[in-house]
Amino acid sequence: MSLPILKLNSGAERRLRGGHLWIYSNEVDNSATPLKGFEPGQQVVVETDKGKPLGIAYVNPNTLICGRMVSRDLKYKLDRSLLIHRIKVALSLREACFSDDCYRLVFGDSDALPGLVIDRFYDVFVVQVSTAGMEAVLDEVVDALNKVFTPKAILLRNDGKMRDMEGLETYTEIVQGDIPELCPLMENTVPLLAPLQKGQKTGWFYDHRNNRAQMQKHVEGKRVLDLFSYVGGWGAQALAAGASQAICVDASHFALEVAAENARINNAEDRFEGFHGDAFDICKSLIADKEKFDVVVLDPPAFIQKKKDVRNGERAYSRMNNFAMRLLKKDGILVSASCSMHLQRERLVDIIRSNSRELDRNAQIFDQGHQGADHPVHPAIPETDYLKSFFVRVLPSA
Amino acid sequence: MSLPILKLNSGAERRLRGGHLWIYSNEVDNSATPLKGFEPGQQVVVETDKGKPLGIAYVNPNTLICGRMVSRDLKYKLDRSLLIHRIKVALSLREACFSDDCYRLVFGDSDALPGLVIDRFYDVFVVQVSTAGMEAVLDEVVDALNKVFTPKAILLRNDGKMRDMEGLETYTEIVQGDIPELCPLMENTVPLLAPLQKGQKTGWFYDHRNNRAQMQKHVEGKRVLDLFSYVGGWGAQALAAGASQAICVDASHFALEVAAENARINNAEDRFEGFHGDAFDICKSLIADKEKFDVVVLDPPAFIQKKKDVRNGERAYSRMNNFAMRLLKKDGILVSASCSMHLQRERLVDIIRSNSRELDRNAQIFDQGHQGADHPVHPAIPETDYLKSFFVRVLPSA
Repeated sequence: MSLPILKLNSGAERRLRGGHLWIYSNEVDNSATPLKGFEPGQQVVVETDKGKPLGIAYVNPNTLICGRMVSRDLKYKLDRSLLIHRIKVALSLREACFSDDCYRLVFGDSDALPGLVIDRFYDVFVVQVSTAGMEAVLDEVVDALNKVFTPKAILLRNDGKMRDMEGLETYTEIVQGDIPELCPLMENTVPLLAPLQKGQKTGWFYDHRNNRAQMQKHVEGKRVLDLFSYVGGWGAQALAAGASQAICVDASHFALEVAAENARINNAEDRFEGFHGDAFDICKSLIADKEKFDVVVLDPPAFIQKKKDVRNGERAYSRMNNFAMRLLKKDGILVSASCSMHLQRERLVDIIRSNSRELDRNAQIFDQGHQGADHPVHPAIPETDYLKSFFVRVLPSA
Repeated sequence: MSLPILKLNSGAERRLRGGHLWIYSNEVDNSATPLKGFEPGQQVVVETDKGKPLGIAYVNPNTLICGRMVSRDLKYKLDRSLLIHRIKVALSLREACFSDDCYRLVFGDSDALPGLVIDRFYDVFVVQVSTAGMEAVLDEVVDALNKVFTPKAILLRNDGKMRDMEGLETYTEIVQGDIPELCPLMENTVPLLAPLQKGQKTGWFYDHRNNRAQMQKHVEGKRVLDLFSYVGGWGAQALAAGASQAICVDASHFALEVAAENARINNAEDRFEGFHGDAFDICKSLIADKEKFDVVVLDPPAFIQKKKDVRNGERAYSRMNNFAMRLLKKDGILVSASCSMHLQRERLVDIIRSNSRELDRNAQIFDQGHQGADHPVHPAIPETDYLKSFFVRVLPSA
């Protein structure tokens, strides 16, 4: 194999040897191997300053993270064959954990496939590529899927935010078969529908699977409020588990229409209600109307996108947790979640604590959740561990 | 109500108002209300330096934590009536979460009953009191249990480590009924037996319930190693879930005998083996013999008891995680747990990361666990959040 060499500065190999996959542009020995000499997406052999090879990475000279390791064995570059192998390894974890073929099949770095996300809805696959290095082998990704599975359809949702930084255009494309407007899936034994083309990201958020299963245990005969509901992942599952009512709140008419459809296919349209509007405003008017719920699910979009947003973001989380608690009955349950990787678990616990005290109530956290097994955590890359949820009993103070 | 007053120094009320329950001895205004003037266990009205009442606490002038809040309402001191109320509130959480009457009924501070732990095994109750303040109302605790339940037996396991510091003697006493040598319980639909009198702490560790349930999904037809097994909480549940073999390793002959009994009542004595000895030594000899397992459960006792033990403790966790990984088959699963509150989650993740890399393998964390709902977390008291577990796929590097 005759890949070009990317030489690192002294000491820069340490993190990579420890398992990390990312190379920062200031870690490259630019005099020996100028970054500007590489094409975006090109594969290289990464070497220490002493000339010891560390493995193979793909590079992008234009991004802060200028390289991502794809293999520690110089025999295996990122090609159809390695993609097939990696997808099979990822598949074996999902098959060991889930009974239905509905899951995130590939979760980027954590499945040793940086820049690649694949969500599976039975025989329908949604692929999301976020780096130039993965875009360079996109045909091989589609090939690999056809080798390992018999896909009815493959959709590219190449419209993620990172693509711009990587110098990639954003586009959505059906590369194979037909994509239904609402695609069936199964989560926690509940049949659901996801809008793969028009929805957020890949169309469905599988990451909360375990937390929604946990919620199902607490909703029978209960009144549930699902804030920032999107297409009703929580709300519809609450209804399927016997909730007496689920109110989904979302700013998107389209999302609420799909949420209603998800209630309908679970024979619960009569127990479903969709409130359109800003969740903050709707909470305020629900509080003014003295509405109370047994269970409030607060699963907002990432209020903290970047480190600099931490302060404002935490304030938004705090405000929403406060609203949610005020909408709870005396011994109601708050499910408080966050997908912001910049919000530490302890910070969210503290937001829960301070707001419960402010309302002169005592919070008791009786369950803690994480992303599901189809979103494994890479132990060297804290960014891969982003999702948290807390199940909280908000008791009267005494 | 005419309780004496305990006056705090300026600013010391802040943490208490924020939900915390502990008063440190240096937070007391010793000139206004000398600590030495109180009896161990006496109840007081806690006041700010400005004379504003914060609630009722019990005190112990001889300990660093010299007071623990029992109520924020001056109407309710810690007596039979408040104990009944608090036990009922605690019970309602357990009843909402568990189908069998086997759980930690009261988890100290988190259930607003500092110094009190009660474990329930159907109609048998094990009570553990760790503070002078709770010891002072011990008769009322027993009364309250008899009011809320119909206990067949009540055992006091008042032999915890904290009692010495509180100036309390250590003793074990059956205050009511008969305690069987091995007491039946149910966990995750598996019948089990716990040695309430002779076993560790209260006889059973309910806290890992969810994590053991999670483990059950991954052991069918598999060979399982249960390190530091105690009475086989993991091993016996693995056998009940269809493991082809479970080897329990423990330093106590007695614990292994109970573990064997737990295998037997699950009709799995032929698939059970107990290895007596030091887990470190046994791991070394298993490695020397090239033994391999599909699943290794590493749930050691707290290697870090005090802050000063962090360094040595982390080294012990690291060594055991290394051993455990070397005993895994190619795509085996490591369940790595820690009950040391001084070991942060991130530190255990890093121990998993570094040891997998040292063995040139890639760790993938696909599930994370916590203590169960019968060990709720008090959001103001981080010490109440002590248990962590990680489910790790340890893959060959590539």
